[in-house]
Amino acid sequence: MTRSLAPFFSPSGVAIIGTSQDPRKLSHGILKNMTLYGYQGGIYPVNPKADQILGLPAYPDISAVPDPVDLAVAVLPAPMTPAILHACGERGIKAVIIISGGFKEVGGVGVELEKECLQIAQSYQMRLIGPNCVGTMDLYTGLNSTFIEGMPARGSIGFVSQSGAVCGGVVDLIGEKGIGFSHFASLGNELDVNETDVIAFFGDHPQVKVIAAYVEAIEHGQRFIEVVSQVSKEKPIVLLKAGRTDAGARAVSSHTGSLAGSYAAYQAAFKQAGVIEVEDLSSLFDVAWALSCQPLPENNRVVIMTNSGGPAALASDLLASHGFELVEISAEKQRQLAEKLNPSAQVSNPVDMLGGAEAHDFDHCFNVLADQPDIDTFLPMLVPQSLVDPAEVARAIVNQAKTIKKTILACMVGDKSVGEAREVFHSNRVPMSVYPEVPGKVLGAMQSYRQWLEKSNPTPFEFSDLEKARVCDYLHHTERLVLGEVDTRPIMADYGLNLVPGELAADRDQALAVAEKLGYPVVLKIVSPQILHKSDLGGIALNIASAEDLESAMQQMVERINTAAPEAEITGYLVQKMAPKGMEVIIGMKRDPTFGPLMMFGLGGVYVELFKDIGFGIAPMTVEQAYEMVSATKTGQLLQGFRGGPTYDLHAVVDAIGRLSQLALDHPGIDEVEINPLLVLPEGQGAIVLDARMILSEA
Amino acid sequence: MTRSLAPFFSPSGVAIIGTSQDPRKLSHGILKNMTLYGYQGGIYPVNPKADQILGLPAYPDISAVPDPVDLAVAVLPAPMTPAILHACGERGIKAVIIISGGFKEVGGVGVELEKECLQIAQSYQMRLIGPNCVGTMDLYTGLNSTFIEGMPARGSIGFVSQSGAVCGGVVDLIGEKGIGFSHFASLGNELDVNETDVIAFFGDHPQVKVIAAYVEAIEHGQRFIEVVSQVSKEKPIVLLKAGRTDAGARAVSSHTGSLAGSYAAYQAAFKQAGVIEVEDLSSLFDVAWALSCQPLPENNRVVIMTNSGGPAALASDLLASHGFELVEISAEKQRQLAEKLNPSAQVSNPVDMLGGAEAHDFDHCFNVLADQPDIDTFLPMLVPQSLVDPAEVARAIVNQAKTIKKTILACMVGDKSVGEAREVFHSNRVPMSVYPEVPGKVLGAMQSYRQWLEKSNPTPFEFSDLEKARVCDYLHHTERLVLGEVDTRPIMADYGLNLVPGELAADRDQALAVAEKLGYPVVLKIVSPQILHKSDLGGIALNIASAEDLESAMQQMVERINTAAPEAEITGYLVQKMAPKGMEVIIGMKRDPTFGPLMMFGLGGVYVELFKDIGFGIAPMTVEQAYEMVSATKTGQLLQGFRGGPTYDLHAVVDAIGRLSQLALDHPGIDEVEINPLLVLPEGQGAIVLDARMILSEA
Repeated sequence: MTRSLAPFFSPSGVAIIGTSQDPRKLSHGILKNMTLYGYQGGIYPVNPKADQILGLPAYPDISAVPDPVDLAVAVLPAPMTPAILHACGERGIKAVIIISGGFKEVGGVGVELEKECLQIAQSYQMRLIGPNCVGTMDLYTGLNSTFIEGMPARGSIGFVSQSGAVCGGVVDLIGEKGIGFSHFASLGNELDVNETDVIAFFGDHPQVKVIAAYVEAIEHGQRFIEVVSQVSKEKPIVLLKAGRTDAGARAVSSHTGSLAGSYAAYQAAFKQAGVIEVEDLSSLFDVAWALSCQPLPENNRVVIMTNSGGPAALASDLLASHGFELVEISAEKQRQLAEKLNPSAQVSNPVDMLGGAEAHDFDHCFNVLADQPDIDTFLPMLVPQSLVDPAEVARAIVNQAKTIKKTILACMVGDKSVGEAREVFHSNRVPMSVYPEVPGKVLGAMQSYRQWLEKSNPTPFEFSDLEKARVCDYLHHTERLVLGEVDTRPIMADYGLNLVPGELAADRDQALAVAEKLGYPVVLKIVSPQILHKSDLGGIALNIASAEDLESAMQQMVERINTAAPEAEITGYLVQKMAPKGMEVIIGMKRDPTFGPLMMFGLGGVYVELFKDIGFGIAPMTVEQAYEMVSATKTGQLLQGFRGGPTYDLHAVVDAIGRLSQLALDHPGIDEVEINPLLVLPEGQGAIVLDARMILSEA
Repeated sequence: MTRSLAPFFSPSGVAIIGTSQDPRKLSHGILKNMTLYGYQGGIYPVNPKADQILGLPAYPDISAVPDPVDLAVAVLPAPMTPAILHACGERGIKAVIIISGGFKEVGGVGVELEKECLQIAQSYQMRLIGPNCVGTMDLYTGLNSTFIEGMPARGSIGFVSQSGAVCGGVVDLIGEKGIGFSHFASLGNELDVNETDVIAFFGDHPQVKVIAAYVEAIEHGQRFIEVVSQVSKEKPIVLLKAGRTDAGARAVSSHTGSLAGSYAAYQAAFKQAGVIEVEDLSSLFDVAWALSCQPLPENNRVVIMTNSGGPAALASDLLASHGFELVEISAEKQRQLAEKLNPSAQVSNPVDMLGGAEAHDFDHCFNVLADQPDIDTFLPMLVPQSLVDPAEVARAIVNQAKTIKKTILACMVGDKSVGEAREVFHSNRVPMSVYPEVPGKVLGAMQSYRQWLEKSNPTPFEFSDLEKARVCDYLHHTERLVLGEVDTRPIMADYGLNLVPGELAADRDQALAVAEKLGYPVVLKIVSPQILHKSDLGGIALNIASAEDLESAMQQMVERINTAAPEAEITGYLVQKMAPKGMEVIIGMKRDPTFGPLMMFGLGGVYVELFKDIGFGIAPMTVEQAYEMVSATKTGQLLQGFRGGPTYDLHAVVDAIGRLSQLALDHPGIDEVEINPLLVLPEGQGAIVLDARMILSEA
């Protein structure tokens, strides 16, 4: 059993190994921070050349540090780290934070050094955070093992970040805003402890209500999904991913030495794990803060009460684009609103009390609307006016918030003039934004989390008819790395995928015999190890009605191939029954280095590339997730009868995705599979693999 | 000739009509603001009950105010406004700002009152701003006719806003950030002066370099496009539109009493007018400020120099998603960079100088990279570290900015710890953001403006073969409001659109004769005034190969129609030659209440609704704009030979759009036209109207 992460946040005592006496050194800053925020355990600077630092007795080495001590913070040059870890292990230290850089991120010798460090730590059952990180904070124990200036307000957001700079930037950005945190953890190179470990730890921690994460690259993707999808059922996890584009991924890679998988795989994984992904740093905290303060909205119906129409219109746009609507206010309620507001006020939604609106006007709105059952969220907005005190309005609103059990988000458009109002709001756990575009984004994220919580128990795919052993054997014996239709047909069949009836024919006579047996009309396809994309070279003839047509089709095909690809060796012909009418889609799998089998679904033909209308998922997935992956695409809408169009066998598509997932899970040697096209028949009639190809790994 | 707007910003003297002695009244606030910011002209409070207010002599009415005075600010109840305007006109006032509300936005009597006010103003050739607004500011003359607290820094952004609250919010939001403005104008109900007038005024004003606009609804769309597309060739116009969604539009409507046209029309108009549209309030000023400070980037190649990899990765993502790339740094430059940076620093792009980077490290980067010709933009980034002074780093960067003639944007992730740095940056006209997501957005907007400036001289559509008079006559005489294929064929032909050959037949015998004349294969279509969507009811039979087939097709069609639409009267049949193979697209026109003919282009069939892949434009448009409207869609990519596919006659599509535009411009009685499908033939072979319908206005 691996040791808990608790000593990183609530250690019994902390040794800072390599504490400098020079106030300009980071190690000195760490020691200072340890003394500033009320940490109650022992604080032990380790420095063989000092007697005391910042008034604390210094120790020559870790072995001399008195009990109790279970956390060490190492701030010495990278090459000294193995020796330090040995000493820590001998001293009985449970957790070490390695602040220093010079490891994996510099490549070469740094990579080796990391491996050595991990071995040493494991031999002592010590947990490591870092290297190349800025440490941890616990707002409850007062522990601050970082050199970051300042410490945020106490609250219930646990923040984990691969980047130390992002941690530092965030502490600075949110410092004055009163956004409350419980923990900070900066993980750096993640030699041992990674974001999945910290998310699991926060998941169990009673002081954490919301988890926020900044992630660059995840190493063990399947474990991430497994652990995080459990935690997210209990606590919302808001995540910002860097390296979403190629350029960003290269920047991440040169930064951490980690290789990120494809962003499509990350997105699929986040979705399957119930992670709330945000697009930028500002949203990360807007969303986490709202989730940590306010109940989730019951539904998507909002009322805006404002002193100014313009910002309310901007907010309305963003609400609508996140799926929210402005609820209708009943005539009776409108009459009640009008009774005490400015006679020119608008009493429909947005309720516009006009520029002079004061605290009692907001109060009146809440009093009238509090009991309207179809309001899920209240959005009071104010643009400061010279004659109205925003803080007074804020006090009225937070007072109402105490009794109203709905979601309340406030927006006050301004900077310095709304500073006091924000203090009032945030100390009373009502989130306030200064831009009208924020509430829509925040509510959108809250709503998506509510939908995740509402998802019913997932159904695993279960198949009893798979011939796993036979496919293992087949793959073991094949010498090719690229398998075309002839090779993939038996594999597809063994995994219960429907194939169009057909047989291989060596020559004209065999082809005629097969066609006779199948019955016309038939399809003729060229078989050649050199030809993977048959249709591009005229290697497919459809709808052949008779023996004569078959002969001439074959003759023309051979001529075309001989011209287009003279080097191609024609080893035979596939003769297949002409398929019935249906809709052609593509399903596929590509093994992602981070998350494993990345499943794909999309429209067939040129449209898949043109419209990039592709659904992604990570195997293993549940039946529900497969349905969602298909339904989220426009192609999925077509399958389900878009605008009165025909409906196709969606269930058969989901079944095929499940079978292909299982194939990928059972056979790690398969790098890629593409069923293109999968012919989806009308509802209830199934789906047929018309062609499939596969790429095996070289190993 | 209408009078200039200059007196709204640089009047010779200002009378404030209805100035209260009570400091809690808005009118008092206005008088106070007039005295605070160095305005040099006369300031005349008008109040019959006061001798002096704020130490200034008060006048009983406007006629008593001494010369010179050319601006009046009216702050009295709405019903008194006509009398005030008369008095102002008699006194020779050139410009009046009506602050008071109670006009169009309250409906009914308010609408009438506005009309009366406009008539009075026009009779004296006075210009009006408002009603229902917060006035104007001029950072150079010191005029402040608003009651907004505070005044921003002096700079070169002219800001026009329909919403007064947005003006006030913005002054507050940017107050501490040192973003420099030249003018503010809040327009309220826009009874006389509207955003187009102000944009034209700013366009001619030497102190305005960048125009920022907050717009809710535009009234005269065609004039907006005409004027703004001229101004935008000289000065960038950054615009935020409220009411983009239905909910937002309703909020705008209840706020201003204006009805906005469709957002698709607004977007098309903004594009054609060279307006830089932004999505939110924060971007409005980030973009305007950068444009007013920095040269446009020559191209899309950026170098990031940073003290922290995480924020640089986030910035890289946003750069990439806006079409920017991180330029490669040559081996020689990398070597030079490494010479003086931290030995562990990354010297590829992003250049990561690591946490300890100081001012001289940034200096070193600039010194090495300044002469690399393929860098268009420098993006220095810093996350504050306890041992480095951000202001010192800022001073180094602005010093470099003085000699480097490239675009420089800075990012320092933090709040209070980067406040002094921001002062250094902004007083030296280097824009600084605190979130790493900002520079990508800002550069994307700058790049789109550069592309607008680079557009060559536009080519108007010119047609000499249009039978305008004949169509006028036809439309004048038709009694129907909905025209089907039979009715639209002559109109299409008169505007030079190619039709598939065909004729109307009354019965079977005529149909056979027409088919004989055209030559088989033919298409048979039902003609019935009750049937507009023929294919839905089985009213179209394709590819009829012979006389026998035609007879049986007709019989079956009649049976189908009789069953599906027993009420439909079959008045005849269209017999047309079967069209050759091509790609089916839709072109259309819908008259927008704001901008006039809104042209549309999209993929034919079910896909247009599924993928919403539609290009929009406002007629009249140039040939280049029509090409752009088509090319911006995925369908346009298909026409041009996507991934080695066939290429179709794009020019014929553009020609058809031009002809349809002209039809809409020539005949305002046409509300809607839809050519569906337009069959686009292979390159050089043209495009054929296969079906078209039209809706006429009732007037």
